[in-house]
Formats: sequence, structure tokens, C-alpha cells
Amino acid sequence: MSILVQKFGGTSLADAHRIHLAARRAVRAKLDGRQIVMVASAMGHTTDRLVELAARVTRRPARREMDMLLSTGEQVSVALLAMAIHEAGQQAISLTGAQIGMLTDSAHTAARIQSIDGAKIRSHLELGRIVIVAGFQGVDPDFNITTLGRGGSDTTAVALAAALRAEMCEIYTDVDGVYTSDPRVVPLARRIEAISYDEMLEMASLGAGVMHSRSIELGKKFDVPIHVRSSFTDTPGTMIMSQPPGMEEVVVRGATLKPNVARVTFHGLPNQPGVSADVFSELSARRINIDDIIQNVSTDGRRVTVAFTVSGDERGEAEAVAALIGQRHPGVEVSLSETLSRVSVVGVGMRSHSGVAARLFKALADARINVENISTSEIVISVLTAAADGERAVQAAHAAFGLAEGAGQTS
Amino acid sequence: MSILVQKFGGTSLADAHRIHLAARRAVRAKLDGRQIVMVASAMGHTTDRLVELAARVTRRPARREMDMLLSTGEQVSVALLAMAIHEAGQQAISLTGAQIGMLTDSAHTAARIQSIDGAKIRSHLELGRIVIVAGFQGVDPDFNITTLGRGGSDTTAVALAAALRAEMCEIYTDVDGVYTSDPRVVPLARRIEAISYDEMLEMASLGAGVMHSRSIELGKKFDVPIHVRSSFTDTPGTMIMSQPPGMEEVVVRGATLKPNVARVTFHGLPNQPGVSADVFSELSARRINIDDIIQNVSTDGRRVTVAFTVSGDERGEAEAVAALIGQRHPGVEVSLSETLSRVSVVGVGMRSHSGVAARLFKALADARINVENISTSEIVISVLTAAADGERAVQAAHAAFGLAEGAGQTS
Repeated sequence: MSILVQKFGGTSLADAHRIHLAARRAVRAKLDGRQIVMVASAMGHTTDRLVELAARVTRRPARREMDMLLSTGEQVSVALLAMAIHEAGQQAISLTGAQIGMLTDSAHTAARIQSIDGAKIRSHLELGRIVIVAGFQGVDPDFNITTLGRGGSDTTAVALAAALRAEMCEIYTDVDGVYTSDPRVVPLARRIEAISYDEMLEMASLGAGVMHSRSIELGKKFDVPIHVRSSFTDTPGTMIMSQPPGMEEVVVRGATLKPNVARVTFHGLPNQPGVSADVFSELSARRINIDDIIQNVSTDGRRVTVAFTVSGDERGEAEAVAALIGQRHPGVEVSLSETLSRVSVVGVGMRSHSGVAARLFKALADARINVENISTSEIVISVLTAAADGERAVQAAHAAFGLAEGAGQTS
Repeated sequence: MSILVQKFGGTSLADAHRIHLAARRAVRAKLDGRQIVMVASAMGHTTDRLVELAARVTRRPARREMDMLLSTGEQVSVALLAMAIHEAGQQAISLTGAQIGMLTDSAHTAARIQSIDGAKIRSHLELGRIVIVAGFQGVDPDFNITTLGRGGSDTTAVALAAALRAEMCEIYTDVDGVYTSDPRVVPLARRIEAISYDEMLEMASLGAGVMHSRSIELGKKFDVPIHVRSSFTDTPGTMIMSQPPGMEEVVVRGATLKPNVARVTFHGLPNQPGVSADVFSELSARRINIDDIIQNVSTDGRRVTVAFTVSGDERGEAEAVAALIGQRHPGVEVSLSETLSRVSVVGVGMRSHSGVAARLFKALADARINVENISTSEIVISVLTAAADGERAVQAAHAAFGLAEGAGQTS
């Protein structure tokens, strides 16, 4: 019998009514002839409330104790879900991370999964039970409770689907899938039916925050089909998979906007080994999160220009560190940008289609939007524009690749 | 180094301020040169809230899932206590029932402790840590989470004190000890400095509800000195121990009142083997909780009169069952009482002192209180009076044994 993993997020479990809805969904899937493993997040704003409780006790809670505290949220959810499934006349059992043998390292609040003991879950499934697993949590080798950090319940769900060789991992959430662009910015954006892991990873890191990158990476590694869908409707959502149908023909899958980006540029750095390493290890040591790095060489080949971007929130710190680095390299000039926007188009089809960049630049030019920087990877083209141009730029990109019309086909 | 177990109830942990008070108390005891194990209940009304949450999902929650749900309350408390102790500059670690190896049977919501693995706690204590254990919870041999039922955290604390051979188990609560009588009824009641396990067991079952009988029984079995005291003051409370000082001289330790008692009397039951068994197995099958049973034989020895008492809440059901039993025994008459009060005096000194009953009856007679029934055990004398006489009766008993003056000495 095939196994289906269904993960329910906090908004999908916010009250007793929604818990019953989630339970009924699992029961229906079971009656369709599958074995069901549910993974639950903490109800609604439970985690926030627990964090606030800790904040009233101390300003610097030990990470181990935060894990002890926060893991209770998911435990409450799974117990209530089991009760709701019993109420619907089916057998169910709730299990904590410790009880399913979700072994992690000891990096409290951001632990990495080391292994999962699928045998215990399988034995409950064989007895006809719906198994309900507390997401987000595990135990380390010394049996301390750990948590997996942001997006942890998604990670639990995908990891379980991999360990159990499930046919699919369904992620129930408060949106009905992944969109070609943010509908609040691009009114013509539409739901993507299927997207590859690589595209989704780029979309996630570029700000289409439906799922955390980590769970998508895990899905890619173990080839787990992931279905992101709404817990409030029965319409299909977005399939994340290795080979979406028509993959070769689709050039661009989506267009994203990241507003409030700051850029720092070093002009005139010596073009010699170790200079970039020096610059970026300094930034890394200060724990500044770099988005993009763009480097060009001067005409005589002796100097390079290196730009990097960070989120606007980290602007102050990044600029301070950049100034220090600049002082250490005589002849180097550091320039700081106004607030910028980054617009990107993503699609694995780019690998085999030429002219994608040109089409993007033409669309931006037609809209009289100036492009400040350009960087590309194999499946992404990103440009930096003035902040004020960001929304128009992503709309132009969305239109240029026909994303509103259907599958983002080449014309 | 000697080990001290400190248990904090829900009101002692109701908010961040009280959690800090509890933490500071543990830190002070540690700095006095002892190893500290704290046992925590769920904060304030947490358990009630969780029960209500379950009630919104189902009217008949599975007991296993209730345990999964309720055990989170104590887990939250221990994490916050650990943070508070860190804040006070000491090392601490929180542990769940599963983590300390609190092994129980599988009787969910009312599990019995089978064994405790003291080694893990000891190893943390040796490292200089204050160990904070979630009360009320354990795991069964299949690693399901269980809870110990009413008074469960007290039971955890006393069991840990026994397993660790602690010098003492302190129970911090919202009263400052055990009283000679209920101060709301007997204004002259005073705190008892020391009381024996047996006396406390009788006081507990007779309604002096500071501690649940189960933890006192456990204390008695393993000879764990228990100090019941207020979490809001530094004054000593009441020591529960095997041999309180001056034990032989103290005849009566306390006087208790149980209002709202109903009595059922069977007149003319045949005086032959099996009749009482028949009556009471019927009552037991209906899960009616019997308080006292009083039987007398008729002058000719052929008939007996059997009376039993129940709480007023169970009156209706008890009377209905009694009527059925009466019909089954021809010639038996069933009579029902008005609402009565039970007044008892408790003291191990009774064993070696005569005249205690006489003194009690004289005091009641002087107060013009009629005694309806009398029953005694080795260390208790109980009488039933009219409901209206209950408070005056316990006041008279309290005065008759000089309980207000000091140690309840014989005069």
C-alpha cells in the first residue's frame, strides 16, 4: 500500500474546527486506500506565545531550553489531531520526534537530521493507524530535545516521506500553491502547476516564501514529489518534482521581486589571488548575509570592481564593515548605493534556450527602466534597478515571458 | 553532598515573577551546599486550558492522547525554570519524564511508577547543575507518554527523593503547611510543625487536601521526610515524617470536618456470611465511593444493621442502588439520612492513650450535639452529626484536645 505524508502548518490547525478539517482530509485519503502519515506544526500563534513567555523570563534563553519549550507546541497539535481522527471513527496515534527516532545533531534551535527510524511508524501503519508526527523536533544522541529551525515541520515531512519511500509529500498551507510572481505586485500572476526542485529553490531564496529551501533541497536529494496546496480548498496546488511535464519547453517559470536591497561596491581592488577571499571572509566573520556578488575586471586587467548586495536591514552593518576593508586596501574606493530592487526570472529551460537575457533587457528598456547590475546563474537572471522601478520591472518581466498566459512558453 | 528535592506547584509557577522566585529559592539552597533537584507542575491554569482545548475537539478523548497533551504543561514549566536559573547565574538542565527514565505502567491518565533511573540525574548533579524534572509524567515500556493522575507532581517529587536517597522532599505550595483543622471553620486552628505519615494519610483522606494520599504513602514506604511549605514566605511549614518529635505524648494531631455526607442504613439483613459482600460488591460495581461502613448485630444475633456513608454528590445514585439491594433481601428495610457532617479526630498517640473517645463524646455532649454514628480506626475517631452541628462539633473537638494551645498534649 502506498504511503502519503500530509503536513499541516500552523494556520491549518489554528482552532478545533480546522483541526477537524485536517483530520477529515487525512481520513478521506486513508479511505482512498493509502497509508497516511500526518506531520503537524504548532497551532496558530502558539510558537510566538512560547517565545514571548521565554522573553518574560530571560533576554538570552539557552538554546537547549528553547527547544524544550518550543517542542511542546507541536506535541499539543498531534494529540488534538489524534483525538479528531478518533472522533471521525478512524484509528490514530500521535508521536513526538523522540518517539519516531528522529535523530539529529546537537545544534539546538537549528539541528540537522541524522537519521529517522521508519520501522516504528511502519508498524503503526500496518495496524491500520493514521500516524501523526510532531514536526520541527528531534532528539540528539544524548536524548536532548532539538528543533530544526525555520521551516522545520516542512523538513520533517519531506524527510519522513523520503525515509518511508512515500509516494508523495503534501504540504497544506494557507496559500493555494506557488505563483509565477507575487500576486500583490503582479496582478496577472497565476498558480504554477508544476515546478522543478531547482526552480523552486531559486524562487524560495528569491523571496517566494511558500516553503523553506531546506525542505526543497531534501526533496530534491531523495526525489520526493512535494505537493504544496491549500488546506481550505480541494483544488490542486503546485507540484514540486524533478521533471515537471513540458520542462524543456518552459523557458521561464516565474519572476520574483526582492525590494529593499543595498549594494556596496569596491572599485580598484588589485586583481590578484586572495583579495576576494579577504573581503568576503571579513564579511562572513561579521555574520553578514550576502545575496549576490558581481565582479568585473578593469580594461588593463590589473584592477577589479567587486559589488555585493545585502538586505536593506543589514545595510548599516555591511557598510561599516566595507569601510574598514576599504581602509585596509590603499587605492580602493568604496561606494554605497541608494535602496535598490532586485528582479529575477527563473527557469530551468534557460539552460537550453538562448536569448532569454536579451528578451528581459529589451522588456525593461521598453519600460524605460535602467538596469544597474546584472548577475546570472544557470537558471536565473537577476537585475538590480532603482527601488522605485522594482514593481514595474517585475511586471514587465512577467509579461515578457508570457507567464500570465499559461505555461511560460517561448513564443 | 546531600540531595534536596524541591517541588513547585502550579500557583508557585503562575507567571515569570513566581518562576524567578522559585529559581532563586533553588539557587539559595544550592549555595547552602546541597545538590538540588526541582520538580515542576504546569504553570497556573495551564492544565485546565489544555483540558478545555481537548474538550473542543472531542467529548471522549483517548487517554493516551490526553497524556500526550497534558504532559506539555510541565515541559513548558521546566524549560522556563532552567532559563530563570541560568539568569540567576547557576547551571541548570530541564528533563522530561522520558528523559529521566521515569518508567510507569500503561494505565494512561493514572499510571503507576515502576522504576526511576537515578543515574542520569546524578550525573548532571555531579556536574554542578540544578536538575529540573517535569512532574506528573513518565513513559511506559513502549515509550508512550503517561501521566500519574491527581497529585502526580507530588508523587514524582517523593519518588525521586526516594530513588536519589535525598535528605528531604520540599513541597512548595500556596498554603504554609498542614493545620490542626480548617482555619475557615476553626479560627483557632494552628499550623502543625510535624506530623506522622499515618496521621497525614488520615488527615488527607478526611479532607485536609494539601497533599494527595498517594505521595504520602510513597513517603511512608521509603521514609522520605516531606516538608510542606509556602512558596511565598521563608517560614517553616509542616514536616511529614515517620517519628515526629514528642510523638508519644501527642494524643490528637488534628480535627477534621467533612460536610455534606449522606448515610444509607440497611436494617434487618441476615447475619450470615456473604451478605455484606453482596451489598458492597453491588455498590462497587456501580463505582460508588464508600467513605465509612458501620455494622452492628441485633440482640438475638440473627440480624445485622449495616450503614454506609457517601459524599453528598453521590447520594442519588447510592440511594437508588440501595433500594434495589433492599428489594432483593426480603424483610430488609432501607433508611436514608438527611444530610450529615462527619467530624474526626486523628492522632497516632491514641494507640497508647485511653479515654480519647470518651473525651470527644463529652465535649460534643457539653455542646449539646447529638452523635448519630461512631466509627473508629487505630488512629481516628469519627462521628456523624446533623449537618447543622458539623462546624460546632469540629470546634468542640479542636478545643477538647487543646489543639489551639500547642502540640495537642494530653492535659
